[in-house]
Amino acid sequence: MTRTTRPGPVAGFTFAATAAGIRRSGRPDLALICSKIPARCAGVFTTNRIKAAPLQLTEPRIAAGLCQAILVNSGNANACTGEQGLHDARSCSRLAAASLGIAEDLIAVSSTGVIGAPLPIACFETHIPELARSLKSDAEQAVAQAIMTTDSFPKQAAVRGEVDGTAYNLFAVAKGAGMIHPNMATMLGFVLTDALVHPDLLREGLRRAVDRSFNIITVDGDTSTNDMVLLLANGVAGNREIAPGTPEGERFCAELTGILLELAKMIVRDGEGATKLVRIHVTGASSAADAVKAAQSVATSSLVKTAFFGEDANWGRIIAAVGYSGAAIEADRVEIRFDGVPVVQRGISTGREQEARATEVLKQAEFTVAIDLGLGSAEADYYTSDLTFDYVKINADYRT
Amino acid sequence: MTRTTRPGPVAGFTFAATAAGIRRSGRPDLALICSKIPARCAGVFTTNRIKAAPLQLTEPRIAAGLCQAILVNSGNANACTGEQGLHDARSCSRLAAASLGIAEDLIAVSSTGVIGAPLPIACFETHIPELARSLKSDAEQAVAQAIMTTDSFPKQAAVRGEVDGTAYNLFAVAKGAGMIHPNMATMLGFVLTDALVHPDLLREGLRRAVDRSFNIITVDGDTSTNDMVLLLANGVAGNREIAPGTPEGERFCAELTGILLELAKMIVRDGEGATKLVRIHVTGASSAADAVKAAQSVATSSLVKTAFFGEDANWGRIIAAVGYSGAAIEADRVEIRFDGVPVVQRGISTGREQEARATEVLKQAEFTVAIDLGLGSAEADYYTSDLTFDYVKINADYRT
Repeated sequence: MTRTTRPGPVAGFTFAATAAGIRRSGRPDLALICSKIPARCAGVFTTNRIKAAPLQLTEPRIAAGLCQAILVNSGNANACTGEQGLHDARSCSRLAAASLGIAEDLIAVSSTGVIGAPLPIACFETHIPELARSLKSDAEQAVAQAIMTTDSFPKQAAVRGEVDGTAYNLFAVAKGAGMIHPNMATMLGFVLTDALVHPDLLREGLRRAVDRSFNIITVDGDTSTNDMVLLLANGVAGNREIAPGTPEGERFCAELTGILLELAKMIVRDGEGATKLVRIHVTGASSAADAVKAAQSVATSSLVKTAFFGEDANWGRIIAAVGYSGAAIEADRVEIRFDGVPVVQRGISTGREQEARATEVLKQAEFTVAIDLGLGSAEADYYTSDLTFDYVKINADYRT
Repeated sequence: MTRTTRPGPVAGFTFAATAAGIRRSGRPDLALICSKIPARCAGVFTTNRIKAAPLQLTEPRIAAGLCQAILVNSGNANACTGEQGLHDARSCSRLAAASLGIAEDLIAVSSTGVIGAPLPIACFETHIPELARSLKSDAEQAVAQAIMTTDSFPKQAAVRGEVDGTAYNLFAVAKGAGMIHPNMATMLGFVLTDALVHPDLLREGLRRAVDRSFNIITVDGDTSTNDMVLLLANGVAGNREIAPGTPEGERFCAELTGILLELAKMIVRDGEGATKLVRIHVTGASSAADAVKAAQSVATSSLVKTAFFGEDANWGRIIAAVGYSGAAIEADRVEIRFDGVPVVQRGISTGREQEARATEVLKQAEFTVAIDLGLGSAEADYYTSDLTFDYVKINADYRT
């Protein structure tokens, strides 16, 4: 698997973005992604019971299996906007379909931004036709920029695969920095491939890849009303269909997981106010569920996250978070390491010298906290950020 | 029920506190509470699976039903200290028993402070005999001060009750400001009464009172290794025994809940870095469990708590937190009010004018967010603080 941060060209897809005036700042806020033919598709959507209007519209369309274009805006979530919100989402979708000359049920709509404000529909009416006219094959960076909210940098990843000598490309773009928590996060992700892929593999592969990437990251423990990840496969590469249960199918899933994990880590690195990317690596748990519980509990603890910010190897807070996670634990079997430096063995401190070495590890921008529960063989990973002054600043000031 | 913030004298109990040198700052850090006769007792202990040494020693003693003295220190949690920690806790208890001339199993020991550091046992050896000699009936304020860690003020509450014309007193002292979350919190609470109370009522009453006070507050979502609340009733008031299932029993429970709720609110008000005390009041839930889920989810959301700090009536974050709480919810039935100002009706905004009025409410130091789910008749309360720069500062710097 070759991976590159510079996206490879993914055949048969075009892109456009503009500043439509949805955001007061005048930043780009509306984007369109289009496939030249209807693409097979799969999607993963927020588990929040409050679902934004665009999700209510898009989820059943994706379930039907075909999608040709994605219209996405930042600056307004179109969530908690009642009947009017659903009506507005439909108007946008109708307008995009008309401008592109395709069937309306091939359009996915997606929104991110402030909850509860009515969608400024005039911005869409003015700019959607213009977007449809300006689609280009190399404007994917503009899309990555237009979907940003509190993100500080655009997020994209690409990988090139091969099946029977035919090359194909996978390209993904994502946004997210706050309200980031599994199932899913205030995040949008759009994955495009020119490969021909069996529909079952698309669905199952996306589910698996999301579980191993966007579902093991946390910034602030909040799950949003607008999250969606869409995967479109248009088959333009001309490869033999990639089927489930084959080596190529496994490879495709691994590639998909790879680029989504790359994006997931970018999201944590760009977590609101974050200065550190920390991997919580739990091993030796009694069960897979326990491993996840323990890793998640440590990754979401405010006390642990502020200690990371303070560059304090405060393992007491880590072991306390494992203790209340609900995972089975025996205090005298726990071992904790910071990038290989042991600070806890058999449940107690290894002494000041090791702690001083661990403090050096914490000064790095990225490190791993390895927690061995010493009870079984199950393990789990979680990626988290530190909790900083800037997190508070960004979120206390967000709307004002 | 008469309630006063100035503690009433609780007969037959004496108090002492000193600066034993456990804390480097030289602040008071060791305290002793003693009843002149063995008292009936009940206790509630942390649910964290990592239990500090003093809990391992004290929990079975309290379960046996009698306690005469409580030795408590701040500055060191004696948690994750292995065999040595348990040995040290026993030494302290033995020393207190010898100094007081009572049986060792009548001593409760309790610690709060940094996790993982060995207990500086010499401080205890030097100061416990001195404490035992200096016990006084009016030194309860000194105890409240000695158990503080990151608390900014001492916390005590008292109430006077009456049964058949005989007066009795309830006095409680607590500490806690960080690692505050139900089941239980980094908190210690000691409740003393001179009433004669049936042992079943003590146990059941304490459990109920804790569930309605310390178990519905949150500062940072972390549950500590050292939490305990002890209730001692020495019967010195000379009243007829208060029995379960009687009007006096109910009254006693209500008084107990009252002073614990008073202390619980003080803890949130003193939450690390907190500037606001916010009551989350959920009504109209389908079930009691759903009401608690919804209230807790809102109370613990970092995004909601930073919005409180920013004095932003950001109901979108509130409704999103209800949406991912797991509680049954129908978006178009939700109503949200800030101290009576409606900001959401039938799931959508009531408009800018109401939101401006709500913003005024948020400028207050204390207010209520009322969330009506419109589905049933179950309700729940939760008390939370805002998430501020100072929270991050305090916890990033705590050990250094």
